[in-house]
Amino acid sequence: MSLTPLDSSRICVHTMTTKPLSLEQAVEAYVDAGIAGITVWRQHLDGIDLNGAASLLNGSELDVVGLCRGGFFPALSGDTRQKALDDNCRAIEEAATIGAPVAVLVCGAEPGQSLDESRKQIADGIAALIPEAEAAGVRLAVEPLHPMYADTRSAINTLAQANDLVEALDSEWVGIAADVYHLWWDPALEREIARAGDSILAFHVCDWRTPTRDLVNDRGLMGEGCIPIRQIRGWIEQAGFSGYSEVEIFSEEFWATDQRAYLERIKEACRGHV
Amino acid sequence: MSLTPLDSSRICVHTMTTKPLSLEQAVEAYVDAGIAGITVWRQHLDGIDLNGAASLLNGSELDVVGLCRGGFFPALSGDTRQKALDDNCRAIEEAATIGAPVAVLVCGAEPGQSLDESRKQIADGIAALIPEAEAAGVRLAVEPLHPMYADTRSAINTLAQANDLVEALDSEWVGIAADVYHLWWDPALEREIARAGDSILAFHVCDWRTPTRDLVNDRGLMGEGCIPIRQIRGWIEQAGFSGYSEVEIFSEEFWATDQRAYLERIKEACRGHV
Repeated sequence: MSLTPLDSSRICVHTMTTKPLSLEQAVEAYVDAGIAGITVWRQHLDGIDLNGAASLLNGSELDVVGLCRGGFFPALSGDTRQKALDDNCRAIEEAATIGAPVAVLVCGAEPGQSLDESRKQIADGIAALIPEAEAAGVRLAVEPLHPMYADTRSAINTLAQANDLVEALDSEWVGIAADVYHLWWDPALEREIARAGDSILAFHVCDWRTPTRDLVNDRGLMGEGCIPIRQIRGWIEQAGFSGYSEVEIFSEEFWATDQRAYLERIKEACRGHV
Repeated sequence: MSLTPLDSSRICVHTMTTKPLSLEQAVEAYVDAGIAGITVWRQHLDGIDLNGAASLLNGSELDVVGLCRGGFFPALSGDTRQKALDDNCRAIEEAATIGAPVAVLVCGAEPGQSLDESRKQIADGIAALIPEAEAAGVRLAVEPLHPMYADTRSAINTLAQANDLVEALDSEWVGIAADVYHLWWDPALEREIARAGDSILAFHVCDWRTPTRDLVNDRGLMGEGCIPIRQIRGWIEQAGFSGYSEVEIFSEEFWATDQRAYLERIKEACRGHV
């Protein structure tokens, strides 16, 4: 399989990858680094004026690729589920305001109820949002999460499950965010990527470190771990996806370093390993 | 679904659950607690005379349920793979010597090669051991491990994969060890347990804590977490399994407590939650 090397024009960085930077600092640093795309985490919109953020982003050379994140639908009470829906509506509005065509959904899970029930609440929650998504022109990307997050973060844990869900919802406004960190171990991955086809709306990259010292914030830079990232990108592109490779690395270790130097390492890792 | 409550006569404890106890101390403590079964980890045989250990076990009232663990087949070099096979032959001999009818296999994974290659080496490794297993009268139980261990501990990460492997090997000497910790998140679990049927050779219990603070040594006592253990035991028994529920908890927290008091908590947790 021959893949076009990934140049900066196809790299997107998540603001959470450079968590210590404010949105304004991130925009400036990404532009200076020649990175083409940005996916904005809502934490980086907290406490700043949304229209100001939109002006900052749209006045920059950056392509706004996505908003992270909506989701977290399951809850024990109907009230809490309604609050989650309200918050997802705000996320969709925020995505539309900053010009993000996709809002990523981390679907949630509630350890006090069965996974079956959480999965049903997720399907119901997303179905309820489709009219909002369509009205706003924002696609919803279901991100299957690694099974180690099935207790509280997501009851959607394989690409097969996400595909089942997206097929059942049957809307052009609902698709998939495929993240190598969550999916790499799955023996059905190649087949399920082909099945996902043009419902793939986002492709996230990082690496799996050995040993992984923390369940959440010890992701590796591409090439540091054992994920066959380039092979997976090949499958993703064969399925028809031609968008950005989005660098989404949660790492206490990297957050403690100089973020501009880190962006240079990210570009090099993308060229060598994505 | 109505299940017989789990009384002490169907509880087995893994020596690694009470890691601070020597084999001799564990045998005495389990007997005093009225626990019926013991699964012996090879760490607890290290540095003691194997025949002495066998006498100790067989002279006690405990049923020797299994030996943990063989496996770790994949490696980059043929030499290392051969060493792993030799070590597995020793594990089978040890199981036979102490009277354990089952040796559990944690199949291994090598982050420097593809999961496909590791999976092929696992199948080849187990196939090579079948004559030894048959000669010794020891069944080999493939334990699918949680996907968070796919980098170095096992490339067999779902019950479906383990079932595929066991079916392909097609030997009465190879079956499955089903551990709720590794499998609970899987949407195909009920179906795959039914498919496994009488190839289920062992059933391991513990719980998934929220939050889980360590990828290896922060397992919970049954009832402390979100795993529907009793429901899974129901599926396991419907599939025809009538053996022990084996308590296998790796926990720095519990290892730091009084192990005899801990055994009482284990029995109570089994009655209430398994």
